[in-house]
Amino acid sequence: MRIGILGGGQLGRMIALAGVPLNLSFRVLDPSRAACAAAVAEHHVGEYEDYAALADFVAGLDVVTYEFENVPVETARWLSLRVPVFPPPEALEVAHDRLAEKLFFTRIGIPVPAYGPVTTRQDYDDAIRKVGLPAVLKTRRFGYDGKGQTVLRTDADIEPAWTLLGGRPLILEQFVKFEREMSLLGVRGREGEQRFYPLVENRHRDGILHQSLAPAPDRGSLHELAEKYVGAALSTLSYVGVLAIEFFVVGDSLLANEMAPRVHNSGHWTIEGAVTSQFENHLRAVLGWPLGDTSPRGFSAMVNLIGQLPQREAVLATAGAHLHLYGKTPRPGRKLGHVTLTADTREGLAEVMRRWQG
Amino acid sequence: MRIGILGGGQLGRMIALAGVPLNLSFRVLDPSRAACAAAVAEHHVGEYEDYAALADFVAGLDVVTYEFENVPVETARWLSLRVPVFPPPEALEVAHDRLAEKLFFTRIGIPVPAYGPVTTRQDYDDAIRKVGLPAVLKTRRFGYDGKGQTVLRTDADIEPAWTLLGGRPLILEQFVKFEREMSLLGVRGREGEQRFYPLVENRHRDGILHQSLAPAPDRGSLHELAEKYVGAALSTLSYVGVLAIEFFVVGDSLLANEMAPRVHNSGHWTIEGAVTSQFENHLRAVLGWPLGDTSPRGFSAMVNLIGQLPQREAVLATAGAHLHLYGKTPRPGRKLGHVTLTADTREGLAEVMRRWQG
Repeated sequence: MRIGILGGGQLGRMIALAGVPLNLSFRVLDPSRAACAAAVAEHHVGEYEDYAALADFVAGLDVVTYEFENVPVETARWLSLRVPVFPPPEALEVAHDRLAEKLFFTRIGIPVPAYGPVTTRQDYDDAIRKVGLPAVLKTRRFGYDGKGQTVLRTDADIEPAWTLLGGRPLILEQFVKFEREMSLLGVRGREGEQRFYPLVENRHRDGILHQSLAPAPDRGSLHELAEKYVGAALSTLSYVGVLAIEFFVVGDSLLANEMAPRVHNSGHWTIEGAVTSQFENHLRAVLGWPLGDTSPRGFSAMVNLIGQLPQREAVLATAGAHLHLYGKTPRPGRKLGHVTLTADTREGLAEVMRRWQG
Repeated sequence: MRIGILGGGQLGRMIALAGVPLNLSFRVLDPSRAACAAAVAEHHVGEYEDYAALADFVAGLDVVTYEFENVPVETARWLSLRVPVFPPPEALEVAHDRLAEKLFFTRIGIPVPAYGPVTTRQDYDDAIRKVGLPAVLKTRRFGYDGKGQTVLRTDADIEPAWTLLGGRPLILEQFVKFEREMSLLGVRGREGEQRFYPLVENRHRDGILHQSLAPAPDRGSLHELAEKYVGAALSTLSYVGVLAIEFFVVGDSLLANEMAPRVHNSGHWTIEGAVTSQFENHLRAVLGWPLGDTSPRGFSAMVNLIGQLPQREAVLATAGAHLHLYGKTPRPGRKLGHVTLTADTREGLAEVMRRWQG
C-alpha cells in the first residue's frame, strides 16, 4: 500500500516512520526541497495548487492524507475524485477559517470564547463592544503557532492592532483568563469506530507549544467532557483519522480554542507513552484498519525543541528521555525536534523532569 | 552522521528506523536488489568481497556496522582501515567459527557443552567417543537458523551424518538435554560502559526462533550468571555494540550455545518492551554516545512470523499486539516479520497471548 501525504514536514516524517513497520510506503508532496519527511518517503517537489504536480503525485497512491491544515480545500477535493482522501476535505474547510470553526463548535454544542467576526472597521468597533477587552484579534485564515494574531489589552491597543491586521477577514475573540490549556486527540475509523487518547495539558511559550503532560494532572471530569466534544466533532464531520481540539480550562468547563484535522504536536508523546501512537492510529484509520489501543503507558511529558538543539549527550544520558530530531536546519522559533520523558508513575516523571532540566 | 550497514535485511531496516529520529542517515550494502532495509536507507547493490563496491560504499560514511555475522572478516578489516567498524572485526572472527567460539567461551570461563573438532574421519570417530550420543554435527562456519547441522541420536545416524556434512571443517557437540533456552543481550559503548537487557526465554520451532518471553519467567539467579558471562565476552573483545549470547539452561547452570555479534532476533521485543530498543542502543554504542536505559517496560512476548503472514486485521485488532513487517516476499521458513505482545503484568501478558492465539 502506498500512502500520499500532502506536506513533508515532521508530522509526515513521523507518520512514515510509524508506517514502515506496517509495510506501507509513502510519497509526500512538498514545495520545499528540504522537506524532512524525504528521509523516509519518496518526495515530490511541487506546489499544492499545481495540478500537473498533483496528477503526478496521486498516480499509484491508495489513499491520500495531509499533515498540515493549510492545504487548499480545492486540492483535497480534486484529489478525492481520484483516490480516497482522509480526513475529509470538509474538515479542512472548517479548520481553515476561525469563524467557520467557531460556528461549527457552537452548532454541535461545544462552548467557545465570546467572539465577533471582523471585516470592516465598523465590524471591529462592534466586536470590541460585544467581546470587551482584553481580546485577541486574529486573521481568520492561515494562522498557526501564534502567527497572524495580536492581543488588545487596553484601548491603546485598538488602533495599532487594526493597522497591523485590518483589511483581511478577521475575528475578535475574548481573551480567556484560562487556568490551563488542554487538548484531546480522537481518532475515527472508516467504519465509524472512535477512540480517544487521554486529555493532555499543554504549556505554551511565545505562542508555540512548549510542553505537553500526558495524561493531564488533576483532570477530574474534564476528560469525559473533552471526549464528548471531540466525539461530536468526529461524528458530525464523518471524520476519518486523528483530530485534535485545543481547549481553555475555566473552572469545570472547557472552551474550545481551535481544532487541527491531523496528527498533532500535543500527541507526540504517544510514540513512547501510549500503546499505539497517534501516527500509527492515523494510518490505521485512513486505511480502514482496526484502530489501536489508545491507553497511556505510564506518564509522559513531551518537550518541544524550538530554535536550537540541546546538547545531544545530555539528552541521551537522561534515563527515560527519548530524543526525536526532525532533520531541520535550526532557525529561531522553528520546531526542530522533541523529547519525550516517560516514567511509570507521576512522581517518577517529576524526577525525570528534574534531571532533564537540571 | 551517516552510518553504513553491511547487510540490508530486517535487522538493518530496524536499525535505520531507530536511527532516523536521532537524525542519522543510513547506507546499506547488500547484493540483493530486494534488500528490505532499502525502504529506509540508501542501498548499494554489491557483493561483500567486491572491493570496488566497498570503496564506493564506504565513501562519506562516519562509521560502519553489520547486521549479519557472515560478513567476511577481511571485508570488515579492510573497511576498518578507512572508517571505524563496530563491533570489532575480531568479534566477527570468533563468531564465524563454532570451534573458535567454543575456545573463546572456555577461555573466559563460560561453560559450553562437550564438543570435539572434526576435520577427518578419524576426528569424527574420536569426537563421538569423547562426546557420546546423542550429539549434533555442525559445520564450523556459516550455519544459522538450524542450517548446516544434523542430529546424531543413535549409532545408525553416524554414517548418514558424515555423508551429509563430512569433508568440511566440522564440530561435534553434545546434544544438551536442556530445560529451556535463554539469551542475554549486552551492549558496550566505545568508552567501555556496559548495559544488559533482561534475560529472555526463547522457544524454537524447526530450528528457527519462534517466540521470546521477556523477561524470562522464573529466572532465579540465571540473569546474574548470564550477565557475568556476557560482560566477560564484551570486555575481552573490547566489544562495541550489541552482543547476544544464547544459552541452554541445565538446572542452575547455563551452557553457552552461540554468540551473535549484532542486534538479535531475541531482542526485537525491546522496541516496545524496553525503555531503549536494542537497535537504538546499538547505534548509541557504535557512535560513542551515552547508552540508553535497558530496563523492561512491563512484560513482552515476541512471536516471529515465519513463512506466511497472519491475517493483518486479526493482529491489529488484538490490543497489546504490535505488528512489524519486513517487506519481504513470503517463502517457506523465511522470517517475514514479528509481533510483540505487551502488558503491564505477566498475567496480563498471558491474557494477551491467549487472545492472540485464539
